[in-house]
Amino acid sequence: MKALEERILREGKVENDSLIRVDGFLNQQVDIAFMDELAKEFRRLFADAAPDKIMTAEVSGIPIACSVAREFGSIPVVFARKGVPVMEDEQVYGSPAKSFTKGTYATMRVGKGFIKPGEKVLIIDDFLAHGEAGLAMCDLIRQAGAEVVGFGAVIEKQQQGGRLKLRTIGVDVCSLAIVKDIKDGRIEFTESGR
Amino acid sequence: MKALEERILREGKVENDSLIRVDGFLNQQVDIAFMDELAKEFRRLFADAAPDKIMTAEVSGIPIACSVAREFGSIPVVFARKGVPVMEDEQVYGSPAKSFTKGTYATMRVGKGFIKPGEKVLIIDDFLAHGEAGLAMCDLIRQAGAEVVGFGAVIEKQQQGGRLKLRTIGVDVCSLAIVKDIKDGRIEFTESGR
Repeated sequence: MKALEERILREGKVENDSLIRVDGFLNQQVDIAFMDELAKEFRRLFADAAPDKIMTAEVSGIPIACSVAREFGSIPVVFARKGVPVMEDEQVYGSPAKSFTKGTYATMRVGKGFIKPGEKVLIIDDFLAHGEAGLAMCDLIRQAGAEVVGFGAVIEKQQQGGRLKLRTIGVDVCSLAIVKDIKDGRIEFTESGR
Repeated sequence: MKALEERILREGKVENDSLIRVDGFLNQQVDIAFMDELAKEFRRLFADAAPDKIMTAEVSGIPIACSVAREFGSIPVVFARKGVPVMEDEQVYGSPAKSFTKGTYATMRVGKGFIKPGEKVLIIDDFLAHGEAGLAMCDLIRQAGAEVVGFGAVIEKQQQGGRLKLRTIGVDVCSLAIVKDIKDGRIEFTESGR
């Protein structure tokens, strides 16, 4: 998506060969009108998926997930949580995910009532990198007997291989901007989409 | 707000005298159309505040903050983060906040570029209880030389005293549902608003 690539080039900060910060519109400060534009594109790309529900991972996937849900007629958004549950007796599905950015493992979890058998769930996240959070969310959805109808990322970092892992388990992956490579601090894109 | 009180009574789970779970529409699963309704009410209540920006605390304040931002003409949303920054050299404002639910302290922080001197910032959060997160966010905003033009919570738990703390430092507080008391698992509301 051209407008997104331009914005990443204009405002993104390349921290190293594998980390781009887009805190100004996606990760800490959120440009709501731009999220709604991106959401329209996700709607177009996943129109055939006809999701009943959107799932995302806390934290920074939440704004774009909410915008996408609105585009699909205000279907519910569920977020997979990380860390220790407040209530110990919570009935949850859980799945482990490694964070390469933080170098830690976290159990992703979702309350059992929030994903129902047979539901069609579209996963929306801000980044697709190593795909660990995505795999964990697919696992949570499938544990519930529901169906993953797609995975949409705002920004994909191709070299980190997340797409391949998700495709291997049969998930339709679609990103709005795909970073092919970062060379000497310069970002190179490849054609976005499926 | 009547529709909100009814929904809390219908779907809220009283865990103990100080904890109500509204995971089904606010905290883990989000009802987007309902968030947009609540946002319209916040817009009405804070019309005179004319905010330039919305601030919220990760995680569950984010969906309602995004809806409120859209109501005010898609102004930016900034979220105050908890925990350890990924990038150690990050330039941030920080302020400590105690979580009574989790029994821990966390430093809330926001990147220095995201709140500018003179900006009018409206804080929106899902809950107002002890007011610790609210106080920390006010501190972050004031460190940046910006102005707190109000604090809006979806649900306030009156007995935990957060409103008084925020009023004491001169902040206009407004909640859409105010829980006066929880007796034998029954929720009692008092008139909501300022």
